[in-house]
Amino acid sequence: MTFPAPLTGVVPPVCTPLTPEGEVDVGSLLRLVDHLVAGGVHGLFVLGTASEAAFLTDRQRRQVVEAVAGHVGAGLPVLAGAVDMTTARVLDQVAAVAAAGARAVVVTAPFYAAVRPAEVARHYRRVAAASPVPVLAYDIPAAVRTKLPAALVLELAGEGVLAGLKDSSGELDGFREVAAGVRADSRTAGFSVLTGSERLVDVALTLGADGAVPGLANVDPHGFVRLYRLARAGDAQGARAEQERLCALFTLTRTGGPGPAAPGALKAALHLRGIIDCPATAGPQLPLTEREVAHVRDHLAAAGLL
Amino acid sequence: MTFPAPLTGVVPPVCTPLTPEGEVDVGSLLRLVDHLVAGGVHGLFVLGTASEAAFLTDRQRRQVVEAVAGHVGAGLPVLAGAVDMTTARVLDQVAAVAAAGARAVVVTAPFYAAVRPAEVARHYRRVAAASPVPVLAYDIPAAVRTKLPAALVLELAGEGVLAGLKDSSGELDGFREVAAGVRADSRTAGFSVLTGSERLVDVALTLGADGAVPGLANVDPHGFVRLYRLARAGDAQGARAEQERLCALFTLTRTGGPGPAAPGALKAALHLRGIIDCPATAGPQLPLTEREVAHVRDHLAAAGLL
Amino acid sequence: MTFPAPLTGVVPPVCTPLTPEGEVDVGSLLRLVDHLVAGGVHGLFVLGTASEAAFLTDRQRRQVVEAVAGHVGAGLPVLAGAVDMTTARVLDQVAAVAAAGARAVVVTAPFYAAVRPAEVARHYRRVAAASPVPVLAYDIPAAVRTKLPAALVLELAGEGVLAGLKDSSGELDGFREVAAGVRADSRTAGFSVLTGSERLVDVALTLGADGAVPGLANVDPHGFVRLYRLARAGDAQGARAEQERLCALFTLTRTGGPGPAAPGALKAALHLRGIIDCPATAGPQLPLTEREVAHVRDHLAAAGLL
Amino acid sequence: MTFPAPLTGVVPPVCTPLTPEGEVDVGSLLRLVDHLVAGGVHGLFVLGTASEAAFLTDRQRRQVVEAVAGHVGAGLPVLAGAVDMTTARVLDQVAAVAAAGARAVVVTAPFYAAVRPAEVARHYRRVAAASPVPVLAYDIPAAVRTKLPAALVLELAGEGVLAGLKDSSGELDGFREVAAGVRADSRTAGFSVLTGSERLVDVALTLGADGAVPGLANVDPHGFVRLYRLARAGDAQGARAEQERLCALFTLTRTGGPGPAAPGALKAALHLRGIIDCPATAGPQLPLTEREVAHVRDHLAAAGLL
Repeated sequence: MTFPAPLTGVVPPVCTPLTPEGEVDVGSLLRLVDHLVAGGVHGLFVLGTASEAAFLTDRQRRQVVEAVAGHVGAGLPVLAGAVDMTTARVLDQVAAVAAAGARAVVVTAPFYAAVRPAEVARHYRRVAAASPVPVLAYDIPAAVRTKLPAALVLELAGEGVLAGLKDSSGELDGFREVAAGVRADSRTAGFSVLTGSERLVDVALTLGADGAVPGLANVDPHGFVRLYRLARAGDAQGARAEQERLCALFTLTRTGGPGPAAPGALKAALHLRGIIDCPATAGPQLPLTEREVAHVRDHLAAAGLL
Repeated sequence: MTFPAPLTGVVPPVCTPLTPEGEVDVGSLLRLVDHLVAGGVHGLFVLGTASEAAFLTDRQRRQVVEAVAGHVGAGLPVLAGAVDMTTARVLDQVAAVAAAGARAVVVTAPFYAAVRPAEVARHYRRVAAASPVPVLAYDIPAAVRTKLPAALVLELAGEGVLAGLKDSSGELDGFREVAAGVRADSRTAGFSVLTGSERLVDVALTLGADGAVPGLANVDPHGFVRLYRLARAGDAQGARAEQERLCALFTLTRTGGPGPAAPGALKAALHLRGIIDCPATAGPQLPLTEREVAHVRDHLAAAGLL
Repeated sequence: MTFPAPLTGVVPPVCTPLTPEGEVDVGSLLRLVDHLVAGGVHGLFVLGTASEAAFLTDRQRRQVVEAVAGHVGAGLPVLAGAVDMTTARVLDQVAAVAAAGARAVVVTAPFYAAVRPAEVARHYRRVAAASPVPVLAYDIPAAVRTKLPAALVLELAGEGVLAGLKDSSGELDGFREVAAGVRADSRTAGFSVLTGSERLVDVALTLGADGAVPGLANVDPHGFVRLYRLARAGDAQGARAEQERLCALFTLTRTGGPGPAAPGALKAALHLRGIIDCPATAGPQLPLTEREVAHVRDHLAAAGLL
Repeated sequence: MTFPAPLTGVVPPVCTPLTPEGEVDVGSLLRLVDHLVAGGVHGLFVLGTASEAAFLTDRQRRQVVEAVAGHVGAGLPVLAGAVDMTTARVLDQVAAVAAAGARAVVVTAPFYAAVRPAEVARHYRRVAAASPVPVLAYDIPAAVRTKLPAALVLELAGEGVLAGLKDSSGELDGFREVAAGVRADSRTAGFSVLTGSERLVDVALTLGADGAVPGLANVDPHGFVRLYRLARAGDAQGARAEQERLCALFTLTRTGGPGPAAPGALKAALHLRGIIDCPATAGPQLPLTEREVAHVRDHLAAAGLL
């Protein structure tokens, strides 16, 4: 049950359904996983941003990983976010999610504490040295305020510190530099280049991405899997059309949060589609207004997903 | 052993001495506490930014609170940071530090996750509702990217949600607005207005602050206590002279980190003064270079603190 | 008619009244100047942020300086902003405003173009070398994104490049460092330390400021002059009371713009007080709504200024 | 001599060669233009960021437009930046560059002054209403701090306010939204969608861009024209290979400035290639060090451009 090198395909960041009381709704979570597996996804990423990892307690995080990893078994690779501020705290998270069944961890640069570039590199080296499972870098400057430079990612990839990159930076030129650099260096064979830019998956695959981690794939896994297959089959035109359809669907997320792709809209859509029991997000996030829910419903209807 | 309302005086954010292996050095920690108590401080703030809270594991955080609270007993109020990303995680931290002996908790706005202003208010209301001890707001936009507006602090103070403010924003006009607002509203009697701007303590006291939380007080508690007493005695001239002496000393912190007041310089100074055994900071922070240590030593010598 | 060294007292950034068609209303401008002179101010700063300098054409800028400098003659020092992106463009502005009668110029760091710290220093050295009148640094990171470090200001002051500082950064610890540094260095005698933080004038004077440049002094010059005199007379209590009164009045500016102290609210107040004919701001700024005007009127009424 | 609707192809932002004294070197400028024309470019953009527009005086700006427009005559469309802070000042720039021969103007959102979203829209509406030539929006948040939302660009395109977009934001998902929106709306036929992301030209063309404005095309116009033709011919593989060659060449710009693509490196390359007489950049920019020049030379040599 080793981790694929590289990991390819569609790897949704799995939403975390909650009960009205704010506890993990394991039944809904496993129904969501079944829905994703039925959609043909190639892996599952739990405890990412779309999973509200920042809002879940350590107990709840463990519960999520155990439930999902136990449910899919060896069938699909399960990656888990190990989201915490600095090295030692991240390592506690890594130990917990690995013990709970995660086959790889996804780790951001330090946050809250101000750190210098050399300290970011040191962070990844230390995490990787102590992790029982492969470590992927999570480049998410909107959350942590540090952009991982392409040169650093390539250096750590070449050393074997990093097994992959999940790029949620939105900066496609740096992403291209990583993809091209990985291709050019025999030491980085097997390194997984994954994009989190769900509106640019076709483009990212053209640039050399191995796969995508699209939050919207919770709602429409079939669409992203179709897009992936079209792109892999060399049908650029078809991939682009599917991507543009998904871009239109993506506008359903422009509600219910401080930015696009906020978990609230994804959960509202999953609830409206009957996949999860309750659309609640974790506190202190405000619930969607009726008007916001109607906005989501309209987009689902327009996409034929209701 | 109720929490003072308001808390007044000098309340240092206590550094967390570590062993060369990165574990909490309890012996050094208690020597540091004794040094602060001998300096006349009025309270202790553990697990703040200068304490490297973001770098300590939950186990280490508990160890720090237990050691310090157990050591000072009822003698001095001990506040603890409950630094985590969002409400439920913060409440886990609150429960842990309160159980370990903290008499109040200091809580930031949510971070890592993007939140809207109404969600920040909701966060504090929920934390306060479930906390067994008083909650102070920790306004530290450099770390969390949200500035707490004066109007919000005053609203939450008036409702009894917040017991105080530790302002590390550096924005003195908002601080003045809070201090003036607290003074003007009978519902906020007992609210603690504390500044983290160690180079503006004299000014903050003039504006109505109850006390200060200066990182540099680890190194020179006597100086800050002197400054506090001069200001309270109405000797503006004397307070200003003492403050300017401390501003000069503060330049020792301009080394060993990404910004001023990085823990590395404070720990180097405590080590050079013989108060703690080892100047190590937590990973992934780089140790100070020899040149940086010399810079710290020169400033201590100039201040007569060696 | 040399420039005072240092310039002391209250130096309002003079609003630029416009006609409904968007041209400079010279009659209203001179009435405003007379109102400020009657209030006892010690100098006039034209073409600053509160003057909407960024919105005026070169022709209008020249018109403003000529009108004001011609009107006050040798009676009061007139400083003018020379606001443009980089060195050569700033020097064109300097030449124009000096020819039009400005006795000193106020110059920001480069903006729009990204520059490195050494290039900021080079900018000021070149501007000062070619300017026929003294150059004050305008520290306004909110507009130009570069904070002038205290050490750089002191270095340029010591070299005679800068004749003063107008600090609109809101960062009082750096301001204190400049004020203390100027006091400590015989080479910087005559350097003018001016604060733009209108809610902290009493504090800034305590820290060693020579004067203040408060936008709100357009509306209530008498108040700021009273505050200045109380502070200079050593009446800290009285100065603080006057400052807090002005802080309350300042809330009238929380309307009509993207931030506090937007020109629209100041102009509405001047119009309501009968000092200027038309409250229009320059395009593309939106006019105040009726509700916003009512907000300004309420604050003026509460302050007895109607 | 109307402006093409849409403008297609490679439209380099033309560098502005200077004499050692800092004046426009018209001879070198026209040699550079000839070099670009010989490379097959489809238009010329003067007074953009790579042209150091922010550093040139009004007199120099006029000189550049007159020289270039006079030189190419009706042969090639010449666009000019009208870079200034706000509406009235921009309109002065528009009048000047249009009189000097520019056939379209490129206009940013307001900067220096803080403005609200509705004021950005108002700015473009007023500029377009008074401009004698078509107006393209210049989306460059790194310089002006405002990102133009795709919805706003599409709204202004639909109204006929904007004739095109030059996107230097680096955010490809918004760019895709504009390109798709323009395609879907009959009112926006003829709207020019241009990318300034020189490392993503192949991708941008795939997404529907009409053309590119690559700073590096100063150095290697033939390469970008080749890339454009390959992409237009549907040879995605060939376009990608050419783009990746240009990405490698692009690393020559990682020197001599605060960020990549700084004018200093482009000018050093043009000087080393013998196209311009002097590599000087405008003050206060520091000249490249010898080591930085060597870095540029190495990259040119590796690309066979020496």
